[in-house]
Amino acid sequence: MQQFAPISDDEVFQAHIGGKLSVELTAPINDKRDLSIAYTPGVAKVSDAIHKNPDMAKTHTWANRLVVVVSDGTAVLGLGDIGPAASLPVMEGKSALFKRFAGLNSIPLVIDTHDVDEIVETLVRLKHSFGAVNLEDIGAPRCFELEEKVIEALDMPVMHDDQHGTAVVVLAALLNASKVVSKKLEDLKVVISGAGSAGLAISDMLLHVGIKNVLVIDSKGILNNQRTDLSGKKLKVAATTNPEGIAGGLSEALVNADAVIGVSTSKFEVSDLKKMAPDSMIFALSNPNPEIDPAVAREIATVVATGRSDYPNQINNVLAFPGIFLGALDGKARRITTDMKVAAAHAIAELVGDDLSADYIIPSPFDERVTPAVANAVQRLAK
Amino acid sequence: MQQFAPISDDEVFQAHIGGKLSVELTAPINDKRDLSIAYTPGVAKVSDAIHKNPDMAKTHTWANRLVVVVSDGTAVLGLGDIGPAASLPVMEGKSALFKRFAGLNSIPLVIDTHDVDEIVETLVRLKHSFGAVNLEDIGAPRCFELEEKVIEALDMPVMHDDQHGTAVVVLAALLNASKVVSKKLEDLKVVISGAGSAGLAISDMLLHVGIKNVLVIDSKGILNNQRTDLSGKKLKVAATTNPEGIAGGLSEALVNADAVIGVSTSKFEVSDLKKMAPDSMIFALSNPNPEIDPAVAREIATVVATGRSDYPNQINNVLAFPGIFLGALDGKARRITTDMKVAAAHAIAELVGDDLSADYIIPSPFDERVTPAVANAVQRLAK
Repeated sequence: MQQFAPISDDEVFQAHIGGKLSVELTAPINDKRDLSIAYTPGVAKVSDAIHKNPDMAKTHTWANRLVVVVSDGTAVLGLGDIGPAASLPVMEGKSALFKRFAGLNSIPLVIDTHDVDEIVETLVRLKHSFGAVNLEDIGAPRCFELEEKVIEALDMPVMHDDQHGTAVVVLAALLNASKVVSKKLEDLKVVISGAGSAGLAISDMLLHVGIKNVLVIDSKGILNNQRTDLSGKKLKVAATTNPEGIAGGLSEALVNADAVIGVSTSKFEVSDLKKMAPDSMIFALSNPNPEIDPAVAREIATVVATGRSDYPNQINNVLAFPGIFLGALDGKARRITTDMKVAAAHAIAELVGDDLSADYIIPSPFDERVTPAVANAVQRLAK
Repeated sequence: MQQFAPISDDEVFQAHIGGKLSVELTAPINDKRDLSIAYTPGVAKVSDAIHKNPDMAKTHTWANRLVVVVSDGTAVLGLGDIGPAASLPVMEGKSALFKRFAGLNSIPLVIDTHDVDEIVETLVRLKHSFGAVNLEDIGAPRCFELEEKVIEALDMPVMHDDQHGTAVVVLAALLNASKVVSKKLEDLKVVISGAGSAGLAISDMLLHVGIKNVLVIDSKGILNNQRTDLSGKKLKVAATTNPEGIAGGLSEALVNADAVIGVSTSKFEVSDLKKMAPDSMIFALSNPNPEIDPAVAREIATVVATGRSDYPNQINNVLAFPGIFLGALDGKARRITTDMKVAAAHAIAELVGDDLSADYIIPSPFDERVTPAVANAVQRLAK
């Protein structure tokens, strides 16, 4: 089902030489007059005005609408803790997506420390340099503590995209998939395979929108109240999910489940998937290798989604984060709230409209309606 | 002598709305294939390759040729300590000049701390994000300690432009001005009015190229060995300058001086300037208001230079820093050495060639030969 010509390694490496970003001038400097406006002596008037009225920094510099993509390189794609330098191509790509899909300026900042407080401190020291923070590819459970602390420390939109961007798009897809199978969202039994940043954020989101029967599985099995090995965020999730107190692994969790969402490298077995309720939904989101071959999954479930661009129903964060940050910045929001994220999910889901089908539950990342719809939904809730 | 139409405040403020920089993509992302190259899954191959061979970060990300313009906002133009947010328009302008004059990507990072060690620590944590550091508008004497520590801590080109950019262009101008007045550089008596970042760096530079009689003046008078109020960098400069041990102020210093270089807000009095040797040189570099009206200075001295674009002989750092950083980066230099700075000054001076005259001792910032000439001179010395 490959939709485009194969991409060779050589083409990929060639495309990265010198990096993927360029800083350009918004107005040319062609002569001494231009120089006197953009630099001395003219610029002194602008600096002096901001000194006297700090709010003018928001309108007369680029910082207020600049998104920094911040990573410590500890959980980069499927590669793990490869460090800040090796994470840079991903962060550059993310910055490129901010410009491409939301028109926002964005730069990557990779930080060479694993210490949560040092990362927070670094961002606090630099806070006048930017207007929003996209945390990226930071390992769990540190990412939960880090996001909380950065939100607390900075008076600007902050979001860990691996958690919330993923949760928003998954919710959007689930809203539409449940329509396809004619099941009420609140009545779904949903199994989440993976208890990292994405898995736990998806769990929070599904509970927030009223789904009561959510099960989350980590490498040791289903999270439940009997587990004695849990702490932090996982402990909280264990307390709010799994109302029936089921123990075991994926095989036990999937019995009569309506939906399974894979966000780890653990594979799905056909025999387990067959235990799901009729008209099931399988989201095999691991990338680039889904938890199960989508074609095989499609023989078992009514709706199948993946993270890949070469299959139908691509769950791609790019549907969410550009519009979420754009709406938050346009609305001068000081926080990205859960309500904004839910509104973003509904906005994405609604774009599918009457074309809804098992193979079209979510719009394409290149559907130009997406970012404006998400941004409007978010901006409406900004305060 | 205004060379262009007057600039209104309104025009200056209008030109700064939204800032002066934009981040752009080096290649378009038009479809899913492009997305698969610039982002997942393609980008994972590049990150993995850098993880295995860290040197590839230098060729396959933008960081290695990205110059960060770093300030704490403590000595911004003539405005003083106006803080990081208010300094941003200047730093954006500086980044714009890096692109305009050297084709280098550059971003401003303003840091909300006055603590030298915290600034160093912040840059060390972020070191994988960029490839060179231009320190800017940081107050003396902290700037001396800061630059030393940043150079020590980072394995990349680092330069405090207010010190060295200024010193390079002053030396370039003095090389040519001394030819105009037919005096040997080494024999000059040079008075520097101002002992801030620029004044002390100029002093070091002039001593380095063999000028023996340099006097530096701060707000309390001429630096000399008898002063008991000096410490740090000023103490060192007092020990290496003023061989005749002259005490007093500008009036005493200027007796028989060949050149005076103004890099503070202190004014020059006509009666004092008249004490200089015949065929004198006056560099009144304070901006936007020179230490003396250039027209008045021209009646006393043979060569007059200012920092202004609307008079002849503009001493402008933009002649130096773009080429210095470009040459250092092209040459993969790990340090910007004094020899490189001297070579840069000679390269700038030599471009004037046979057109040398009292009113043309230094090329225009818009002379397109300047940056390549400086970059080549610097790169030749890189190791």
